[in-house]
This record gives sequence, structure tokens and C-alpha cells, in this order.
Amino acid sequence: MPQDRDDAFAWIDAQRERRDRAGLVRRLSPRPADSPLLDLASNDYLGLARHPEVTAAAAAAAHRWGAGSTGSRLVTGSTELHTTLERELAEFCGFEAALVFSSGYAANLAAVSALSGRDALVVSDADNHASLIDGCRLSRAEIAVVPHADPDAVGKALDADEADEAHAGEARAGEARRRALVVSDAVFSVDGDAAPLAALAAVARPYGAALVVDEAHGLGVLGEGGRGAVHEAGLAGAPDVVVTATLSKSLGSQGGAVLGPARVIEHLVNSARTFIFDTGLNPAAVGAALASLRLLRREPERAARVRTVAMGLYGRLTAAGLAAVRPDASVVSVRAPSPEQAVRWAADCRAAGLMVGCFRPPSVPDGVSRLRLTARGDLTEEQVEAAVDVIVRTAPTA
Amino acid sequence: MPQDRDDAFAWIDAQRERRDRAGLVRRLSPRPADSPLLDLASNDYLGLARHPEVTAAAAAAAHRWGAGSTGSRLVTGSTELHTTLERELAEFCGFEAALVFSSGYAANLAAVSALSGRDALVVSDADNHASLIDGCRLSRAEIAVVPHADPDAVGKALDADEADEAHAGEARAGEARRRALVVSDAVFSVDGDAAPLAALAAVARPYGAALVVDEAHGLGVLGEGGRGAVHEAGLAGAPDVVVTATLSKSLGSQGGAVLGPARVIEHLVNSARTFIFDTGLNPAAVGAALASLRLLRREPERAARVRTVAMGLYGRLTAAGLAAVRPDASVVSVRAPSPEQAVRWAADCRAAGLMVGCFRPPSVPDGVSRLRLTARGDLTEEQVEAAVDVIVRTAPTA
Ligand SMILES: Cc1ncc(COP(=O)(O)O)c(C=O)c1O
Ligand SMILES: Cc1ncc(COP(=O)(O)O)c(C=O)c1O
Repeated sequence: MPQDRDDAFAWIDAQRERRDRAGLVRRLSPRPADSPLLDLASNDYLGLARHPEVTAAAAAAAHRWGAGSTGSRLVTGSTELHTTLERELAEFCGFEAALVFSSGYAANLAAVSALSGRDALVVSDADNHASLIDGCRLSRAEIAVVPHADPDAVGKALDADEADEAHAGEARAGEARRRALVVSDAVFSVDGDAAPLAALAAVARPYGAALVVDEAHGLGVLGEGGRGAVHEAGLAGAPDVVVTATLSKSLGSQGGAVLGPARVIEHLVNSARTFIFDTGLNPAAVGAALASLRLLRREPERAARVRTVAMGLYGRLTAAGLAAVRPDASVVSVRAPSPEQAVRWAADCRAAGLMVGCFRPPSVPDGVSRLRLTARGDLTEEQVEAAVDVIVRTAPTA
Repeated sequence: MPQDRDDAFAWIDAQRERRDRAGLVRRLSPRPADSPLLDLASNDYLGLARHPEVTAAAAAAAHRWGAGSTGSRLVTGSTELHTTLERELAEFCGFEAALVFSSGYAANLAAVSALSGRDALVVSDADNHASLIDGCRLSRAEIAVVPHADPDAVGKALDADEADEAHAGEARAGEARRRALVVSDAVFSVDGDAAPLAALAAVARPYGAALVVDEAHGLGVLGEGGRGAVHEAGLAGAPDVVVTATLSKSLGSQGGAVLGPARVIEHLVNSARTFIFDTGLNPAAVGAALASLRLLRREPERAARVRTVAMGLYGRLTAAGLAAVRPDASVVSVRAPSPEQAVRWAADCRAAGLMVGCFRPPSVPDGVSRLRLTARGDLTEEQVEAAVDVIVRTAPTA
């Protein structure tokens, strides 16, 4: 729609009408401090966001370090508390070093863009999270989007690029080649399926391509005591593997991190725009994430419990005839016939006291709407049963 | 440098060596909870990050609402506390509505990209902040970078675009034209100079172009009681003006916000990727920002005091023969002869008990290194005097 001279935002009304007709308008529904709803929608997988130890650590950090970090991490925004979290997180996940960002989104923008660049190739899974995609866009690299969870396709993309380059005379086959990065979610946020990490690493290595894995939904859930999918795949600490993580899901706080070899972290300090030009993570969030991490180390069974809950949910929903995806981690996705029915289904659940996620276009890569249920490690058997009962009872009769 | 097959990150060492030779390596220097240094480096302009009311509000919010918001604002990440902050912030700054993000960086990415798009033109000041530039890159719009603080150049860019379009037959001159956005910092972060906002608005309007202003360094410092530069310019609440702000500077917390007409905010809820696909701001940060805002409303003289301190700093430094830039807000920039001397100068200040910012390439648009001093409203006359004394005493003898 062309610009209206007398109304700079007239085009917004036009978009809004289209969205309205398609049943895709989103509205915020702020929650009270003590919601009576049963939560199967949040990413608080370990139930730590409200754990008294974690909230107390957040409060203590605000008192001791201030409400904000007051500047870029390169100026006044780095506290010793940030360093402690970075050290313990790296150690826990099995990496040499870590760097904390203000969000997982910012960490992903940093890792992808600062480790590629204009003359690089990035091979990116078609279902990768928006923040990884935006990282690709910011990188100005050539982007090869490959089919979801398909190591062969990754190999072909790397191979085709190498052949092109050999042709172009920029490198000889069998010798050096241009920089390449393979990027994937560890656990995909919409369907909750895990990436074939070992296969991706095996396919990337012969090309000298580095692997960047987003552990947003893997940390705290997969691997020994919740060390993540990369740890489980035996790739933690590998010289060509970089992990990004968020502090906002299993760790119940806010923020993000990049983990990898020390030289990679040092490179990010010197070149990642969302690190250099962003205010450091606020102390309360740092303190909370650190407390959650220590709690998880002390109570490693929390991670396994999440997976058990997820499988229990899946089993019951499938037994009731619903089209659920077998969960590799904590997310259980259930298909809905249409966006409208997905919205109505979620609303009916809510009316029955159950909060579920509802994913519709454009938030779903394949255009299929679904309910997105998240298993929390602190759900009781009774709560899981009650939740399944509501979901089945309110399911659209397609 | 081409990729080394046996070492995916060999290119990082090469970059590190180049950086080393140029004297541009950056290192983190984490601070303790009780630093003995006098702080003229942070963006805590009103000295609120450690105000007992503000830290207590952060702590109380963590206890009451949890350490994290637990999800996207569209799922479980919106609390009533977020809504309260949004309402009070919009009201304070004179806008219809506001939307809170996890950072100022994320707010800028959202505003620029969601309000432009592939078929739009964005006219962007050459010295705009990295987050606005990244917003331009993500938008896929055509970007016209115009000379710093130059409304005429903005007018010419809009005019040239219109002529092109009329040629292309997509619009007739004098009628509708393609969507256009003029984007500027309110106060530029490096030199602390203010943008010519009224002139920018006047030049944009006849073209139906909207104006996006980043109040990161204006909020809390400029305008009546700290309402910002846009309010001061009489543009608050205008139908074609959108403001972005950060909660991490004057408000001493973390987070960002976009303020504007209700339909613009609703549009962002439905289309801004850094809103939809990011975890909501953590409650402690929301609570702290809200407490700071209320404090500023109650004690409006805090804003004027910052400006007085900045002018005092500038006056003394200039009188001592240093090349300082006359501050329009709270940032006082002092030129250094070279990056190496800037680093040494900052280090000498630090050794003498004074923390100052040091900006070098690539963080400076013009390649000129400088010390960046930030006036805080809570600095005493004695502290300002002591700071000036150290800066003058350690100045490089060029
Ligand atoms: C896979 C994935 N990566 C990154 C993010 C962004 O992390 P954050 O919300 O901490 O910014 C999310 C969700 O928000 C996610 O689902
Ligand atoms: C002008 C400007 N805009 C935006 C930002 C980003 O805000 P935040 O640090 O809250 O992400 C900053 C600084 O960090 C800034 O200086």
C-alpha cells in the first residue's frame, strides 16, 4: 500500500484489517501475580522462576549490585557477578569460556553474525528460531537454508559451495576454503524435536565449518543433569563447536550466553555488536540465573523429571487420539486443524483453568497451527492428568 | 582469510593479531560491588541504579512476580506489572501507548524494522546508534544514510525518492508515495549532541514520512522533568512520531520501550520479531524502572541537575584547554589524539580513582577516539572538581 501523505500510518490499518479477516490478530493478556491457571505454556521448564532460592538471589543481587548494570559490558556493565556466572556456566556445560548477553536473542544475533561475515557461508536449518535467522540477516553472509534436520542437505550445501569456490579459483579443492558456519537449534521451539547434532558435526568438520547450536530448549532438560544436547552428543568443548543458551527458560531468569573456546569468546567481546553496544544484563537476572544453575547442579534429577513429564503428556494425548509430536525434550506440540480452531481450543482450555501456548502463522515454519504444551519438572501426576483431561475435552472435532 | 580445514577458527587468531597491532583489543574489567572509583563512565544519569527505593522495588518484584517472566510477552511473559509500566511511561512522555522490550536494543530493532519493510525507504542519520543501524539492516528497506544532524539532507533524500518513484510511475507527485521513515537518535551517544528534532519533523511531514526518535540519552535528562527531547520539541503524542527508549540509562534498570499511537503499538505486538520471539523483560527490571519513573515524577529537578553538572564539567574542561564538545544533555565528549593515547588516558584516570569511558574505532563514527564522560545528577561539586582535576592532570601532551 502506498503512503498516505496525511496519515503516515494509514498502512497499519490496512494490515490490521487483513490480519483481522485471517483471524490472526494477537492481543496481550497480562497475568496477575497469583494466577489461578495451571501453567503448561511457559518455558519455566524446571519450575525455578518462582523457586524461593532463585527469587531471593535475584533480590539479593539487586540490593548488592544495583537494579541495572549501568552500561555496556565494556564500560561499567561488567560486574564480578557476571564473571562468576560465566565461569560456572561454561564449566557446567563443558566449555572453556562463556559470555553473558542481555537476552538469548542478543546472544544468537552475536554468535551468528560475529562468527560469519560478508565473505562467509552460513548453512541454516529451515526451522531455526527467529533470532538465528535475524543473526543470518545481520551477518551479510551468503545463507543456505537447508531442509529441517537434514545433515545430508548440510553436507551438500557445503560441498556445492566448495565446488563453486574451486571454480572461482578462490581456493583449491582439498585445501583452504571460505569461512563456513552450520547453525541449528538443539531443540526446535515449535515442535520440540531435537537436532541430529552428532551427524551435523560429522558433516561439517571435513569442510572446516564450525557448528553453532542454540541450546535454548536443551539446557536444563537434555544431557547429564541438564548439561544440554551438545554435551549429550559428546561435542561439549570441541574446538569447532559454539553453543548459545538462554537464561530465560530452564534457568527461570532473563539473559543469554555464548559458550565456546576462549578465543571465540574473546572475539565476541571485540566484535559482537549486541555485546558492545548493549547494556549488560541486570544484576537481579544474573543472580537468579546463577542460583538456578547451582540448584540444578545440586539437584540434577530435575532435568530427567522434565523429560518424564513430557513423555507422560505425550503418551496420554496420543492415547486419546490427538496428533501430538513425540517430544525429545520438554515441548509437546499438538496439531490443530486451523488457526481459528487453535485459538478457540486454547481459549477453551483457559476457560477451564489451563494455560497452553497457541502457535499460529507467522510463528510456525510450516503454516500449521498447534497447541504448544510445555512440561515442567514440578508438575505433579495429578496436574498432568487434569491438564490432559481439559485438552482432550476441549479438542476441536475436526 | 580463507578457512583452515583443520582449525575452524584460525581466522580469529589472524583478526586478533591485527587488532593487537592497532592497539584496539578490548578486555572486560569486571567491577566489585563496592568500587572505590568515582564513576563518570556509566549511563546511570540520575544515579538511580542504586537508589534504595529502586533496588527495593527490583527485589520486591522478583519476590512477587518471579525471577523471570517465563515466556514471550504473547504467551506467559506479560504481567500486570508490565502493563502498569507501559501505561505510566506512555503517560509521562505524552504518548498514547507504550510497549516494553527486553532491551533498548531490541526496541530499536523492532521499531525500525516493523515500521518500514522491504518496499519502504528509511532515512537514517550517519551517527545513529548501532541498534538503529541493525534495525535498518533487518528491515530490508532501502536505506538512505544522510549526513549527521542535517534536516536538509533528509529532505533531499525524501525528495529524490519521490522523484524516482514518480518516474517509475508507482506514484504521482503530490499524491501517495511509498512508505518512508526518518530515524534519529535524540541525543547522540558518542558526542552527546542533540538532534534537530523539530526541523526533522517539519521536513518529514510533507512527505507523509514518519519520524522515529531514540530517546536513550534524552529520557530523564531533557524536556520538562526529564520527559525527553521529543516532548521538549513539542512532538510528544504526534500521530506520525514514534519514540524508542531504554530503561537501562536514566531509569537505572534494564529493558527498552517503544512509545507512540495505539495502532503503532498494536502493530508491533503483531509483527515485531524481537517482541514476539523474545522472552518478556524480567519482573525485577520492570519493577525497578517503574520505581525510577515514579521517583523522577516526584522529583523532577533531577533532570535539570544532570544538565547543570554536564555544563559544569564542560566549562571546566574547556577552560583547562581540552577539546570538549558542548553537551546538549548528559554526555561530555573529550577528544584524544589517538586510540592509544585515549586508552592510556583512561587508564591513568582509573589509576587516579576515576572511571571514564573511552571510545575508539570501531565504536566512533568518525574514527576519532575520545574520552566519554557522563554527568550524573547525584555528583557533588567536589566530585566534579576532583574529576576535572584528574582528567586535566592525566591529559596527553599532544
Ligand atoms: C530457540 C530459541 N532461541 C532463542 C530464544 C531467545 O531467547 P530469549 O527469549 O532469552 O531472548 C528463544 C525464545 O525466546 C528460543 O525459543
Ligand atoms: C542511543 C542508544 N540507543 C539504544 C541503546 C541500547 O539500549 P540498551 O542498552 O538498553 O539495550 C543504547 C545503549 O546501550 C544507546 O546508546
